[in-house]
Amino acid sequence: MDKERYIFEKFSDKKNGDDGALVGKWVFSKDLFVQNIHFKRSWLSLRQIAVKSMLVNISDAVAMNARPKYALLGLELPKEIGISEIDELCGGFLDICKKFNIKIIGGDTISGDRISISVTIISKTKKAVFRKGAKIGDFIAFTGNLGSVIKDFGILENGGKIDENSKFITPDLKSDFFYKAAKFTTSAMDISDGLSQDLSRLLEKNGAGIKFLKNLSKDELFSGEEYEILFTFAKKNRDKILKIAKKTATKITIFGEIAELSADTKFSDLSKKHHFE
Amino acid sequence: MDKERYIFEKFSDKKNGDDGALVGKWVFSKDLFVQNIHFKRSWLSLRQIAVKSMLVNISDAVAMNARPKYALLGLELPKEIGISEIDELCGGFLDICKKFNIKIIGGDTISGDRISISVTIISKTKKAVFRKGAKIGDFIAFTGNLGSVIKDFGILENGGKIDENSKFITPDLKSDFFYKAAKFTTSAMDISDGLSQDLSRLLEKNGAGIKFLKNLSKDELFSGEEYEILFTFAKKNRDKILKIAKKTATKITIFGEIAELSADTKFSDLSKKHHFE
Repeated sequence: MDKERYIFEKFSDKKNGDDGALVGKWVFSKDLFVQNIHFKRSWLSLRQIAVKSMLVNISDAVAMNARPKYALLGLELPKEIGISEIDELCGGFLDICKKFNIKIIGGDTISGDRISISVTIISKTKKAVFRKGAKIGDFIAFTGNLGSVIKDFGILENGGKIDENSKFITPDLKSDFFYKAAKFTTSAMDISDGLSQDLSRLLEKNGAGIKFLKNLSKDELFSGEEYEILFTFAKKNRDKILKIAKKTATKITIFGEIAELSADTKFSDLSKKHHFE
Repeated sequence: MDKERYIFEKFSDKKNGDDGALVGKWVFSKDLFVQNIHFKRSWLSLRQIAVKSMLVNISDAVAMNARPKYALLGLELPKEIGISEIDELCGGFLDICKKFNIKIIGGDTISGDRISISVTIISKTKKAVFRKGAKIGDFIAFTGNLGSVIKDFGILENGGKIDENSKFITPDLKSDFFYKAAKFTTSAMDISDGLSQDLSRLLEKNGAGIKFLKNLSKDELFSGEEYEILFTFAKKNRDKILKIAKKTATKITIFGEIAELSADTKFSDLSKKHHFE
């Protein structure tokens, strides 16, 4: 049983169920980033921890075509943390905030036994893109390459070292592409739990099935924390999308099209990997 | 050294430093509520945990004269938590949301080894009240009675039982009073860390001192988590404030007046109790 889903269905609200919640022109998103759940201290520097905790939240805003403006931080830090360590962590927050033009406007800090970061990102959008909105016949695509994160994660779990440019360490958000492409898309979400799981959510939300146009590897299907964008668009906009992709040097892979839901087109998530089951 | 202050001074922004951050008509507040830091499981039922985690955040909104509208929840729950326990916890969230007309619009849930709740409350205000704004000669007052929470906390820490109506279990927000009184106030904040500490912050923010009109007990000064409201108002509005207090059956205690800062009027926090030092 998926307890996260069970919980959030109890709070069901029409604003719920997307990467962020839209209120007027504002989009609110919130994600936790917790030591020994999302990362081990030996895997990431304090700066990288701060940056990643923000990026996984900014990713939600980007996937809804919203520009992050403000952040609230909830920080649990180990009692024994020193000033130079705090400086490094805060340096990471400040760097990434500068890059995305985000102001930290508040939060809460407590002394505990590990690093646990709760980030709320407040973003503004002129036209939000939701998980729902895909039409029969739309192309389904994702940005970037999928699969490297699950490999890097495996290396870390086995005590190995990974390249410092790994997307596991620093997600590579495709914001340049998506802010330009969003107006031509019909639905979108970020790929945080793996394409298989996220695609099944997107299709369910649209009451639709998929006709695959391309075979995907196991790694492409099951690699989580990729923070690439899964999106759909009308066939007539294919050239526009490809042009923006080229202009922003963003790889995109068109791998399927939205189909009427039937026994043949129904896609069920094949992964067993849930955060919370 | 106060590490919390050190951290948030790094992010200094004019929106920072109040109970919530004002952006247009919206007020954002965020607080953590964590097992073994803010509570022990044996002290509160799951329903009470949910309710209190919300109330400590709603308290920030109330003290700024903002009406809570939406909430985002970050929940870490122990792996072994069962469905009936989730139902109880969620029941608490839903009850308190109903009472304050709040919609839960999103969040994140992870499976960990304890209960850790991060709440973001999104509130709306027509006229925010800040910590800054007190004028020389203004009266300084607090709502309710201070001191019971530190006593109840002591009983719990010694393994005793406390009354189920204790404000430690369920903070008694003075929202009825303050929403009516706010327009006659010049500054306000909630009393979360104890009057001594919170008063020193309020005075510092106003570059002011205090002339005490009343002696306060140690318990009144040092009892934290009271979630009463500390506020200031012009003397000419005394009758209006007292009338609203009477109408809403809210006790208020006028205990001082704002004075020019001098060696005689300077108030320094006497408590050693910091969340994070």
